[in-house]
Amino acid sequence: MEGKEEDVRIGAIMFSEGQPIGTAAQTHAKDYKEPPPAQLFEPAELRSWSFYRAGIAEFMATFLFIYVSILTVMGVVKSDSKCSTVGIQGIAWSFGGMIFALVYCTAGISGGHINPAVTFGLLLARKLSLTRAIFYVVMQCLGAICGAGVVKGFQKGVYDSNGGGANVVAAGYTKGDGLGAEIVGTFILVYTVFSATDAKRSARDSHVPVLAPLPIGFAVFLVHLATIPITGTGINPARSLGAAIIYNKEHAWNDHWIFWVGPLIGAALAAIYHQVVIRAIPFTSKR
Amino acid sequence: MEGKEEDVRIGAIMFSEGQPIGTAAQTHAKDYKEPPPAQLFEPAELRSWSFYRAGIAEFMATFLFIYVSILTVMGVVKSDSKCSTVGIQGIAWSFGGMIFALVYCTAGISGGHINPAVTFGLLLARKLSLTRAIFYVVMQCLGAICGAGVVKGFQKGVYDSNGGGANVVAAGYTKGDGLGAEIVGTFILVYTVFSATDAKRSARDSHVPVLAPLPIGFAVFLVHLATIPITGTGINPARSLGAAIIYNKEHAWNDHWIFWVGPLIGAALAAIYHQVVIRAIPFTSKR
Amino acid sequence: MEGKEEDVRIGAIMFSEGQPIGTAAQTHAKDYKEPPPAQLFEPAELRSWSFYRAGIAEFMATFLFIYVSILTVMGVVKSDSKCSTVGIQGIAWSFGGMIFALVYCTAGISGGHINPAVTFGLLLARKLSLTRAIFYVVMQCLGAICGAGVVKGFQKGVYDSNGGGANVVAAGYTKGDGLGAEIVGTFILVYTVFSATDAKRSARDSHVPVLAPLPIGFAVFLVHLATIPITGTGINPARSLGAAIIYNKEHAWNDHWIFWVGPLIGAALAAIYHQVVIRAIPFTSKR
Amino acid sequence: MEGKEEDVRIGAIMFSEGQPIGTAAQTHAKDYKEPPPAQLFEPAELRSWSFYRAGIAEFMATFLFIYVSILTVMGVVKSDSKCSTVGIQGIAWSFGGMIFALVYCTAGISGGHINPAVTFGLLLARKLSLTRAIFYVVMQCLGAICGAGVVKGFQKGVYDSNGGGANVVAAGYTKGDGLGAEIVGTFILVYTVFSATDAKRSARDSHVPVLAPLPIGFAVFLVHLATIPITGTGINPARSLGAAIIYNKEHAWNDHWIFWVGPLIGAALAAIYHQVVIRAIPFTSKR
Repeated sequence: MEGKEEDVRIGAIMFSEGQPIGTAAQTHAKDYKEPPPAQLFEPAELRSWSFYRAGIAEFMATFLFIYVSILTVMGVVKSDSKCSTVGIQGIAWSFGGMIFALVYCTAGISGGHINPAVTFGLLLARKLSLTRAIFYVVMQCLGAICGAGVVKGFQKGVYDSNGGGANVVAAGYTKGDGLGAEIVGTFILVYTVFSATDAKRSARDSHVPVLAPLPIGFAVFLVHLATIPITGTGINPARSLGAAIIYNKEHAWNDHWIFWVGPLIGAALAAIYHQVVIRAIPFTSKR
Repeated sequence: MEGKEEDVRIGAIMFSEGQPIGTAAQTHAKDYKEPPPAQLFEPAELRSWSFYRAGIAEFMATFLFIYVSILTVMGVVKSDSKCSTVGIQGIAWSFGGMIFALVYCTAGISGGHINPAVTFGLLLARKLSLTRAIFYVVMQCLGAICGAGVVKGFQKGVYDSNGGGANVVAAGYTKGDGLGAEIVGTFILVYTVFSATDAKRSARDSHVPVLAPLPIGFAVFLVHLATIPITGTGINPARSLGAAIIYNKEHAWNDHWIFWVGPLIGAALAAIYHQVVIRAIPFTSKR
Repeated sequence: MEGKEEDVRIGAIMFSEGQPIGTAAQTHAKDYKEPPPAQLFEPAELRSWSFYRAGIAEFMATFLFIYVSILTVMGVVKSDSKCSTVGIQGIAWSFGGMIFALVYCTAGISGGHINPAVTFGLLLARKLSLTRAIFYVVMQCLGAICGAGVVKGFQKGVYDSNGGGANVVAAGYTKGDGLGAEIVGTFILVYTVFSATDAKRSARDSHVPVLAPLPIGFAVFLVHLATIPITGTGINPARSLGAAIIYNKEHAWNDHWIFWVGPLIGAALAAIYHQVVIRAIPFTSKR
Repeated sequence: MEGKEEDVRIGAIMFSEGQPIGTAAQTHAKDYKEPPPAQLFEPAELRSWSFYRAGIAEFMATFLFIYVSILTVMGVVKSDSKCSTVGIQGIAWSFGGMIFALVYCTAGISGGHINPAVTFGLLLARKLSLTRAIFYVVMQCLGAICGAGVVKGFQKGVYDSNGGGANVVAAGYTKGDGLGAEIVGTFILVYTVFSATDAKRSARDSHVPVLAPLPIGFAVFLVHLATIPITGTGINPARSLGAAIIYNKEHAWNDHWIFWVGPLIGAALAAIYHQVVIRAIPFTSKR
C-alpha cells in the first residue's frame, strides 16, 4: 500500500503540470481529512434536535419538490397544444430547478438529499448512519405523498385523466429499457452528488459546497430531457411512490418496481465508481 | 435551555461526520453573531441618506421588474401562435430572471426585496424596522404601477384586450385553489430568501450572499412554471397591484384580495418555519 | 459634506442590522479605494501592447457575439414552423448567453464591453479614457460587421429574404415606442454592469467580478425576451450597425438612428443613476 | 524582450484605473507561476494510477455525455410535432448542460476534456503530454461509441430511421459552410476553455476554476443554438465518430472528415489566439 501511495504522489506531480481545468487532482501535502465512516447506528443522534430537524427539512423539501414539479406536469399534459404551456422542456426545468433551489436551502440542515436513491448511495459510502438513512427515506416518501396529494386536490378529474404524474414505461419501450434508463439516469445524478461533495475537493476549495447545488440540479434537468419520453423519468423513488400512491391505477403499480430497483442500482454503481475508481479508498490503507 | 444547546452541539458532531453536501449544519465554536432584532421604529434611519436611497432602489427595481415581465407577457399573449413567441416558459424566465438580476444589483443597497411579501416575512423575523418595511412596500407598489403603466403606453388596445398581465384565478379553479397556490408559492420564495441569507451560514462562508440571488431567482421561475395555469402567478402583491390598477377591469379586482392574502400568509409561514423549526430561535435564550 | 458622510455612516449602522441579503450596504471603515477618474487622453496607453490587445479582444468578442446570435436568428426566422427551431426564446438565450461567456472570457483583457453603449456609459463615469473608448467602439463595430458578413456568407438568399437580423421597429409600434424600449432596455443592461462592477462591492467581496458576467448576460437575455416583438432588441449599437450594413436595405436604415440614440441615452441614464443616486459621488468630496 | 515586458507593465498601470469588469488584466508583481510546458513523453506518468484513472474518467464522461445528448436528440426527432418534445432548444441544453456537469465532475480527475478537440488545443499549448493526449482521445472515442450504442439499443428502428444523431451537412449548405461552422464553433469552445483556465487568472482568483465549467458548458449550448440547422453541431470529433460508427450509413461517413478537420483547425486557432495574442507567450522570454 505504501508503494501505491507513492505512485499516486508521483502521478500527481506529473499531472499538475498538465492539468488544464479545475481544482487540482492531487497535491503533495494532504491538506484534507477524510471524515471517518459513519457508524451504522448512532444512538446519540436520536437524542439531538438536529436529527429530527433534518427529517422535517427532508419532508418539507420533498413535499415542495413534488408539489411544484407535478403541478407543472399537470399544467402541460392537460393542454391539447403543448405550445401554449411551458412544454416538456419546462417540466425538465421544474424537476431540475427545484432540486437546485432545495439542495441549496437544505444542504446545511439535512445534507439536502430529497431522494432515497441519494440517501442510499451516501449510506453505501458510509456518509451517514443507517438510522438516519431510514428516517430520511421515510420522511421523503411522506413528503412526496403529501405533495402529489395537494396537486390532486386542485383538480381531481384532470389529475386522474392525465396520468397523475406517475412514472410508467412508455409504449414502444420494454421494461428492460425503462430499467436501464433509470439505472444510468440515477448514476449520473449520484455521481454528480459524490463529485460535488468530495471531501478532498472541499478542503482545497471551500466554495465547492456552495456551488454544488447547481451541477446537481442540472444533472436532474438533463436526465429529464433525455428520459421523459421513456419513463417520464423517476431517478427518485420517493417521487415515483408519491405519484403512484395518489394516482393509484393498476398500470402505474405494474411498473412501479422499476423506479425503486433502477435508482437503487444506479446509486450503488455511482457509489462504487466514485469510492473505488476515483478515490481508490479500498486500496489506500492510511486514510 | 443550556441542555438544549448541548443537544444541538452533540447532534452537530454526529452530523458533521455524515453530512454529504453543504456548508456544515453546525460547528462547535459559534463563529457567527446573530444580529440583534431590528427595532420597530428607528428614528435615526429617517435622517440618513441610505434610507431614502434604499427606497429609490426598491422603486426602480420593482419598476424594471414589472416593465420587463409584463412586456414579455404581452408579447406572448397577443400572438395567436404561442410557438412564434418566447412562450409561457419565456414568461417564467422573465419573472425569475429579473428577480435574479435585480436582487444581485440591489442587495447591497436596499437588501433587494422587490416584493412586499418578502419585506413582510423579513419584518416578522425582525430583520428590518416597521418604518422601513412600510416605506419599502409603498415604493414597491409605486414602482409596479409605473412599470405596468409604461407597458400599457406601448399598445393600449393590445394591453386591455389581453388581460393586462393582471392576476386572476383561471377558469376551472376555485378561489380556494388560487389562494392555496399563492400561499405555497410565496412560501417557497420566502423560504429560499431566508435560507440564502441566514446569518449562521453567511458567517461560515462569505460568498453565500453573492450566490444567493441565483436560487432566489430560480424559486420565482419555478413557481411560475407551476402556477401560471392557475393564477398567472402573483406571489408578489406589488406586481399584482400594479397590473390591476393599470388594467382596472372589474374581474381583475374581484380576485385581487387573493394576491395580498395568499402571499402574506405564505411569507408568514416561511418566516415561522425558518425561525422556529430550522433555527429554533425561540428555544435558544443565549443568542 | 462632512455631516453628510456622517449620516451615511449612521444609516449604515442601522441598516446593517436589518439587511437581509447581500454584500452589506455600508461598513464603518472604508475598506476600498475608489480608483481615480480616468484621464480623457492617456498618451502612455498608446505605447502599450495591452491597449492594442484589448482592442483585438473587443473585435474578436463582438465578431463571435454577432456571428452566433445572428446565425441563431437566421435558423429560426427561415423556418415556417418556429416549433422545429430553437424558437424566439432560443434567440434570447443566444444573445444573453454569448454576452455571459464573452464577458467572462474578455473581462480580464479589455473589461469585456462588447457594446458601444456599455463603453459610453463607463466613459461618462470616467472609468476609461476617451482614446480607449473610441478605439473600443471602432473595433466593436468592425467585429460586428464581420460577424454579420460571415452569417450572410452561409446563405445569401436566405439572409436577405429574412431581414438579415437587422433591427427595425415592428408594425404596430411607433418610432417613439421603439426608442423608449431601447432606452429602458439599455438602462437595465448598463445598470447591471455598474452594479456588478462597483469598486465598493468588489473590495468587500473579491469574487463579485468572477460572478458579474452571469447577471450581465441575464440582463441581455431578459431584455430580449421583452422587446424582440417591438424592435428585435438592439441595446447594442455595434450589433445594430453590423446587421444594417450587411443587410443594407432602406427600411432598416430608416430606423437605424433609434438603435444609436436609444442605447446611448439609456447608458447615460444608468451612469447618472448609479453615480449620483446610488453612489452619491458628486456629494462626497473626500473620495 | 525586456522593453516589451516593460510596456506591458505600463499598460497595466494605465489600464487598471479604467478597467470596469473583471479580474484585473495585469498587476505589477507577478503573483502567479506559469507551469512549465509539459514534456511530449513523460514515462513516469505511465506508472501512476492517476494516469489510468484519468483515462477511465474521460471514458465514463464521454459515455454519459453521448448517452444523454443522443437520447435527447432521438426523443425530439422521432416525434412528428416538435412541440410535444423538449424541442431543438432542449437538444442544445442537453449538449451544453452535460458538458457543464461533467467538466465540473471530472475537472479534478482528468482535467475534464471530454472532447478530442479540447485535448488537441491543450496539447498545442503544451498543457499535457502527447502520451496523455493520445490516451485521452482513444478513451473519449471509445466512450462515445458505447454511449451511442446504448441509445441505439433502446429502439433500433427509431434510431436508424431518424439519422442516429450523426452529424451531416444539412441540405442547402455546402461542405465549405459546414467546415466553416465547425471551425468557428470549436474556436468558441476552446477559446472559452483557455480563458477559463488561464494560470494568470487562477492565481489571482482561486475560484475561477470552480466557476469555469459554467461558461464552458454555455459555449457548447450557444454553438448548438446557432449551428444545429447547418451540421447538427459537432465541435467534438468523439461525439461525431461515436454516432457515425453506430449509425454507419454511407451519407454520414461522406461528411465525416468535416467533423475532425473543422474542430481540430478551430482548436488550433484558439490555442494560437490565446497563447500568441492574449498571453503573448512567444514574445516574453522570461516566463
